Amino acid sequence: MPITMTENELTLAVIQTLKEGRRKAFQELMEELQPYDMAWQYKEIPEKHRYKFLAYMTIEELTDLMGELDQDDQLDVLDRLGAKRSTKVLDLMENDELASFLTDLEPEKMKELLGDMKREESQMVQDIMNYPPETAGRLMNNRFVWIKKHYTIGEAVDKLKEFAELAEYLNYLYVIDEERKLVGVVSYRDLLLAEADEKIEDVMYGRVVKVEVTEDQEEAAKLISRYDFVSLPVVKEDNTLAGVITVDDIIDVVIQEANEDIERLSASGKDIDFSTKPLVAAYRRLPWLIILLFVGLVSGGIISGFEGTLDAVVALAFFMPMIAGMTGNTGTQSLAVVVRGLVQEDLTFKQTARLILREFWVGILIGITCGILITFVAFFWQGDLQLGLVVGSSLLLTLIIGTLAGTIIPLILYKLNVDPAIASGPLITTINDILSLLIYFGIATTFLINLS
Amino acid sequence: MPITMTENELTLAVIQTLKEGRRKAFQELMEELQPYDMAWQYKEIPEKHRYKFLAYMTIEELTDLMGELDQDDQLDVLDRLGAKRSTKVLDLMENDELASFLTDLEPEKMKELLGDMKREESQMVQDIMNYPPETAGRLMNNRFVWIKKHYTIGEAVDKLKEFAELAEYLNYLYVIDEERKLVGVVSYRDLLLAEADEKIEDVMYGRVVKVEVTEDQEEAAKLISRYDFVSLPVVKEDNTLAGVITVDDIIDVVIQEANEDIERLSASGKDIDFSTKPLVAAYRRLPWLIILLFVGLVSGGIISGFEGTLDAVVALAFFMPMIAGMTGNTGTQSLAVVVRGLVQEDLTFKQTARLILREFWVGILIGITCGILITFVAFFWQGDLQLGLVVGSSLLLTLIIGTLAGTIIPLILYKLNVDPAIASGPLITTINDILSLLIYFGIATTFLINLS
Repeated sequence: MPITMTENELTLAVIQTLKEGRRKAFQELMEELQPYDMAWQYKEIPEKHRYKFLAYMTIEELTDLMGELDQDDQLDVLDRLGAKRSTKVLDLMENDELASFLTDLEPEKMKELLGDMKREESQMVQDIMNYPPETAGRLMNNRFVWIKKHYTIGEAVDKLKEFAELAEYLNYLYVIDEERKLVGVVSYRDLLLAEADEKIEDVMYGRVVKVEVTEDQEEAAKLISRYDFVSLPVVKEDNTLAGVITVDDIIDVVIQEANEDIERLSASGKDIDFSTKPLVAAYRRLPWLIILLFVGLVSGGIISGFEGTLDAVVALAFFMPMIAGMTGNTGTQSLAVVVRGLVQEDLTFKQTARLILREFWVGILIGITCGILITFVAFFWQGDLQLGLVVGSSLLLTLIIGTLAGTIIPLILYKLNVDPAIASGPLITTINDILSLLIYFGIATTFLINLS
Repeated sequence: MPITMTENELTLAVIQTLKEGRRKAFQELMEELQPYDMAWQYKEIPEKHRYKFLAYMTIEELTDLMGELDQDDQLDVLDRLGAKRSTKVLDLMENDELASFLTDLEPEKMKELLGDMKREESQMVQDIMNYPPETAGRLMNNRFVWIKKHYTIGEAVDKLKEFAELAEYLNYLYVIDEERKLVGVVSYRDLLLAEADEKIEDVMYGRVVKVEVTEDQEEAAKLISRYDFVSLPVVKEDNTLAGVITVDDIIDVVIQEANEDIERLSASGKDIDFSTKPLVAAYRRLPWLIILLFVGLVSGGIISGFEGTLDAVVALAFFMPMIAGMTGNTGTQSLAVVVRGLVQEDLTFKQTARLILREFWVGILIGITCGILITFVAFFWQGDLQLGLVVGSSLLLTLIIGTLAGTIIPLILYKLNVDPAIASGPLITTINDILSLLIYFGIATTFLINLS
């Protein structure tokens, strides 16, 4: 009764059947499990049982299992399976999963694995791996059903039944002409509602939403989230159908792209998760920190340039962290709005201009509010109205400039197609630090030193 | 031939048919369009043509159109449609879309709209709206097909055909018993491959992955991305089937949650996008900035407490922004790793301890590296080894503490189920600012002033 078992009870039952060598009971347990849960059980049982666990599984189940493991575990499974069963599993794996498994493998190991596979399958995988990472081509698979436009509804349904085992989602059939060019799409719902002898051409949609193989994966994600499809056809330059991208891969893309945005905003270093080793995590985080250390020294250099001013009015130092911090914060706020906005929308020139103008107004509004506030605070704290006015007017100016810097810098990088990792949060913060110190000490020197 | 038209050509064609009053030609154009594209055209044409645009559309098309508009435009469309057609459209809208349309509407307007609707539909929407925002219950819809467990495959296929028009995705049928309790799931693929006279009970999966109505939407997103489903059943406390969540809504959830994480990390204020008005954007961003202004003054207070030290060694001020900035940066890095990690994984106590230990090691490693580096820089810049050692050892200590603060504070908030918006990036940065200044001036006072 695996239905009502908890995961731990299941683990015990799995180990029990393996120990007692009851292959059929093991099979019955597996039949009720989703791939993710199979992988969970496989990783949970003691290592000594793993050979038998794999030996008792069908090729289909092994393929499902592989799809849920990371590269080290995948290699380990193939090792335990031996050459013959390995090859069968590889042949059956989805090409996109296979491609991501093979990526970064040693060339010799890759050749060995590909060499044993069916020609057709290994060719398809190699084709996918030829596309650059993070493109639509790299994400597509060939587990879909295509039909010719002259088919009848009845013929299409028959073909669907024949390939049901293979197709990942059955929601749409893609329609091609004699040259394999994509000419239409039929939803399964349409098939159910049409008569068996109608022609596919007459019920299909001709205006197919599609991506080209070389387009960015973000473009595919935008289309799927916009149109609520569960799969999206991928075509080559000549409009021949090359594969499909499915919604489950798109969810992974959306998560990955969000993580990249956050890495960028926080300069937190690539690919650090809960299981990354300390040395690796430190190594990935250090480059940014070292750059920022030297940039931070620039701020120090500016302060040292104003040593005379600071010596004369030590109280200026009290407001320094607040001014630098506020300018950094408002810049990060603007940066976040721009970075996330670009995920969902493309910007025309007119919209860009409007956005910059909007942020300019925002800078003025928050600058005036915070500037007036700090003038009073500084006056009551230090009992010096002149100092209060210097701090207040500096904050007004730095907030406007900080807001604009946080908006314009990422937009320029985006338009220039420069790797936007450069526009990371701490860098904006640091630039704003420097600008704010220059403005603050500049104003202070003019009004407190030169004019007093 | 709408197939080969660009979007602008389409707009011209749409306007043309409206001007000339050719309803049939207009209908033919619409038939080829996806809901998103219909909405695009609707917003693109001049306002004077909108009445006719809506008048020429079928109720089904109007329903699709409504699903793609924001609240203001939705209200405008209903106004133009008049009471009778409006009600038909509302009856046909998906409940989850309807619920999010009705949210935040004036109570009177809501009552008026709900009052005209079919009892059954308005009841379902009100049920959904009773669940708190961001729960599974709020996200579910009733566009799915359920079958009883004693059905045969043949009966199930018939029911599926009957409801094909209504169901959003046809990939799974949910199986219930006499008391409407969820007992199984059958994929459409299984139906295709089974014999017509087999019983549903015998082919269904009994181990159904599901969520409860009151669970967080993030939990639903985790399950869908883990299991690659296109829909997920939602049950009430007693396991009766209440609705389904579909993958298109989950993509929106993933994007929304990522945006919330970024709002949190950058304290950028809720719901600011490219079209937000300046006054609104400034209003949403100000609260955080004002809080941070006062927290920033705390840093100022600390510096003023060490006025004597600063007066004696003005060079200490040169390294202040670097130390505070670096501590803030490393804290933000840790925070980002924790916040994003929690999206994909739940943490056990053991994992939490391991994560904190890992970050402790990371803090030590980057602390030693940056500490040694800055000792040399400070020595060569200021020609003072003692100053170099003070700056270097301070940086070592503040980087370790900053890393731990960025890890532990969000984890505590997460465990306490406190709204993690409190653990926003700038707040961590500010706390780290304060800690780093205390450590820096503390060490400096001890070694440069008291011991000299």
